[in-house]
Amino acid sequence: MNDAQRITGVLSPVVTPFKKDLSPDPDKFVRQCKWLLSQNVGLAVFGTNSEANSLSVDEKIALLETLVSSGVDPARMMPGTGHCALTDSVRLTAHAVKLGCAGVLMLPPFYYKGVSDEGLYRAFSEVVERVGEPRLRVYLYHIPPVAQVPITLGLVERLLKKYPGTIAGMKDSGGDWSNTKAFLDAYAKQGFDVFPGAETFLLQGMRNGGAGCISATANTNPGPIARLFDTWQAADADAQQARLDEIRQTFAKYPMIPALKAAIAHYGGDATWATVRPPLVELTAEQVKGLIADLDAKKFTMPGLKG
Amino acid sequence: MNDAQRITGVLSPVVTPFKKDLSPDPDKFVRQCKWLLSQNVGLAVFGTNSEANSLSVDEKIALLETLVSSGVDPARMMPGTGHCALTDSVRLTAHAVKLGCAGVLMLPPFYYKGVSDEGLYRAFSEVVERVGEPRLRVYLYHIPPVAQVPITLGLVERLLKKYPGTIAGMKDSGGDWSNTKAFLDAYAKQGFDVFPGAETFLLQGMRNGGAGCISATANTNPGPIARLFDTWQAADADAQQARLDEIRQTFAKYPMIPALKAAIAHYGGDATWATVRPPLVELTAEQVKGLIADLDAKKFTMPGLKG
Repeated sequence: MNDAQRITGVLSPVVTPFKKDLSPDPDKFVRQCKWLLSQNVGLAVFGTNSEANSLSVDEKIALLETLVSSGVDPARMMPGTGHCALTDSVRLTAHAVKLGCAGVLMLPPFYYKGVSDEGLYRAFSEVVERVGEPRLRVYLYHIPPVAQVPITLGLVERLLKKYPGTIAGMKDSGGDWSNTKAFLDAYAKQGFDVFPGAETFLLQGMRNGGAGCISATANTNPGPIARLFDTWQAADADAQQARLDEIRQTFAKYPMIPALKAAIAHYGGDATWATVRPPLVELTAEQVKGLIADLDAKKFTMPGLKG
Repeated sequence: MNDAQRITGVLSPVVTPFKKDLSPDPDKFVRQCKWLLSQNVGLAVFGTNSEANSLSVDEKIALLETLVSSGVDPARMMPGTGHCALTDSVRLTAHAVKLGCAGVLMLPPFYYKGVSDEGLYRAFSEVVERVGEPRLRVYLYHIPPVAQVPITLGLVERLLKKYPGTIAGMKDSGGDWSNTKAFLDAYAKQGFDVFPGAETFLLQGMRNGGAGCISATANTNPGPIARLFDTWQAADADAQQARLDEIRQTFAKYPMIPALKAAIAHYGGDATWATVRPPLVELTAEQVKGLIADLDAKKFTMPGLKG
């Protein structure tokens, strides 16, 4: 892969559709991914918002193969491949590279807490070495509120030095702009692509050398977020950002993943889309009513969506 | 399984031996399990201290099959089978039941934080229903410092009501005696077996209706801990407890898992035992020296251990 072809822009941690029996629905998944691509949004499948950690490696491999065999372009994909178990991370990462995915978004092993940077360095190194593919592009996934295991500046520095090119960037879902900015300032000029973990920091990110964003609400509001990425130097950029924030805040009043699925179920006309796997719980009927009323009041739409 | 045959006593979350290439060493694992049984300690294989979350489901199934085919009695086993992904938990739990394991120790799905008791109830229920085996005995695993997702009194109450007999007990690794006591007071008389997560609370637990303990240091100090379980009503019980605490505190001065493995490596004369999987890191040479000097000073031994 040529570095000129690096994946950038707005990516969605694609929510995973389940059937009533809680098994993934591959056909619906393909349709959703194709709709997101039609909105100019890339596919960070198997992210936190995808309930990826509620899926087995086999389930993820089956879904990834279905996407590619259905004609979804792997150059627009950055699947999440980081697991607690080294062998799981290696297996899914190798598979993603084999299928031609642009990159992989890698959680640190997140069960053991308080682990050292040395331990995390070894964890990521082992995956890179065992996969052993020059095409591999790793995006480190910093999401301390959930994983509880952070990606530090010092860790990135060591990994970048040892695996330049392979360590391609990060997603920062810490929600702290000063942290995102510290990574941008330190490494963006070395070709380390920093994606804020929400469109909240899309404009600030682009003004500071960011690569786009990977955001939950890119599942439901993809077109407008992608438009800001394309036109961030336009006169109305701040107004666009304010409008994006307004929609995001509406979703953020509810548990995010069930709220995203409730919106897709409603605007796509397919109630089954609301299904989540335990330990998550779908919104109550009252919550759904509140969310949709709020979104309608804000003239929110999901153009072209078919459940 | 007859309730009279419920697994009780002292169990070890057996540390998992790795070869230099970080693959599990099944022969060494069998030897370690047989040694623990010889010390009257049961086998909570695939616990936190087993680095179980650094192993894939396939690796765990292979190890479990090796144990049973090597003549290790599954009635003395309580493997950890809880994963983030529902399908992983179902698969390993079903396999453990099929092999005849006395019970399974089940972590809640631990990636998503701040999940509701309703979500956890559904998560455990789905596993029980899908495994669908009357022989299944589930021990809920409360370890908030690591999993960050707690098992509450209310959750246990709902599960016990729906699945009496199947929900057989818990391990409480919260390190807070008042929490352990609350579970003992509420449910021990209903046949819900509470295992404190360290021998620190073994004597207090037994005096309040506890079922034994499942403890990291049962890997290295099994005989004396098992002896206190057998003789907790003897005159020297408090003195025994004090001696156990002294040994535990020596290990607890270091990162626990690498320290346990360092001790086994030293007293068993097999340096490879010290190997851990990332994100863990083995003790430094200086730490090993300090640990062994401290243990020797306390006349600590591991009788009969062969690496």
